[in-house]
Amino acid sequence: MARWEPGARERLQEAALDLYATKGFEETTVGEVAAAAGLTERTFFRHFSDKREVLFAGTPLLEQSFVDRVASAPAGASPLDVVARAVRGANDYFAESRRPYSRRRQAVIAANPELQERERNKMASFALSIAGALRERGVSEPTATLSAESGVTVFRIAFEAWVADGEERTIDEIEASLFDELRSLTRP
Amino acid sequence: MARWEPGARERLQEAALDLYATKGFEETTVGEVAAAAGLTERTFFRHFSDKREVLFAGTPLLEQSFVDRVASAPAGASPLDVVARAVRGANDYFAESRRPYSRRRQAVIAANPELQERERNKMASFALSIAGALRERGVSEPTATLSAESGVTVFRIAFEAWVADGEERTIDEIEASLFDELRSLTRP
Repeated sequence: MARWEPGARERLQEAALDLYATKGFEETTVGEVAAAAGLTERTFFRHFSDKREVLFAGTPLLEQSFVDRVASAPAGASPLDVVARAVRGANDYFAESRRPYSRRRQAVIAANPELQERERNKMASFALSIAGALRERGVSEPTATLSAESGVTVFRIAFEAWVADGEERTIDEIEASLFDELRSLTRP
Repeated sequence: MARWEPGARERLQEAALDLYATKGFEETTVGEVAAAAGLTERTFFRHFSDKREVLFAGTPLLEQSFVDRVASAPAGASPLDVVARAVRGANDYFAESRRPYSRRRQAVIAANPELQERERNKMASFALSIAGALRERGVSEPTATLSAESGVTVFRIAFEAWVADGEERTIDEIEASLFDELRSLTRP
């Protein structure tokens, strides 16, 4: 039984991102990531199932946050308001201190089709979970799926804007403006 | 120089879908598809780049149709109306006579992660092209991307409903109701 390594998870994430950014995702092995973090491969696999998943460690937490906030939205809120609340409610996760990491992560993903696929799967999974949570609170189909997809589209566009070079608005400001925009799309 | 084979393309598409449905996509080779269509592998590769692309032969035509219809929509239409017009304008492609083929194709895709990925890429490409066509007609970002993504979401949900067992509405009826739904979702 290996001993507990304090901060191992974060060290592995940092080391992985550094290597993926400099050496390339494909070219980096789990052994190299572990070594760069001063840890063993065994420790790596206690935290992550493979080298791809290091970049998606936050996904389940974020998804759960969306779902919980859909469930706890006030009764009588419109489906799109429920979704906007759920998406924007998770923005503590994307604090300013996280932006440099997110920018580097985005660049690594943009350079690799396999990671892009994983990122698209993540978004598809968010939409399915949010739609499910909406149905749980009595929203029928196709309203649930349409609302969930719209919310995830806003999240995706907002996230891409937030990590773009030179962007200074918070992700919450960007999302607020996108949800406003979504509400005005039907105007001529 | 091989001689022209009348209907070769359609025969290859039918043979491919039959084999993918019965034997499985992974387990079927290009040689088997060609043989089942009474043609050579060489003929197959004159029509399709690989066995996956047989199932996506209509994609460029459909994408071009979306783009052309965005370009030719009346001035002054709201971005969402332009997109709705573009998406619904392509529905001649999904005539009733096509539904059995589309249903079988959908079942093959649902059974294979690689094909699902290709299908998601197709939808992402539609959204990018429609957003580009909207920018061409003066719609600014993020409106162009939000509208395009909304339109593709409607198309995807409508298509999935259209091929579902027992569904009898036309895809155009389904899309009309989804666009109405979207308009009422986003109404300020």
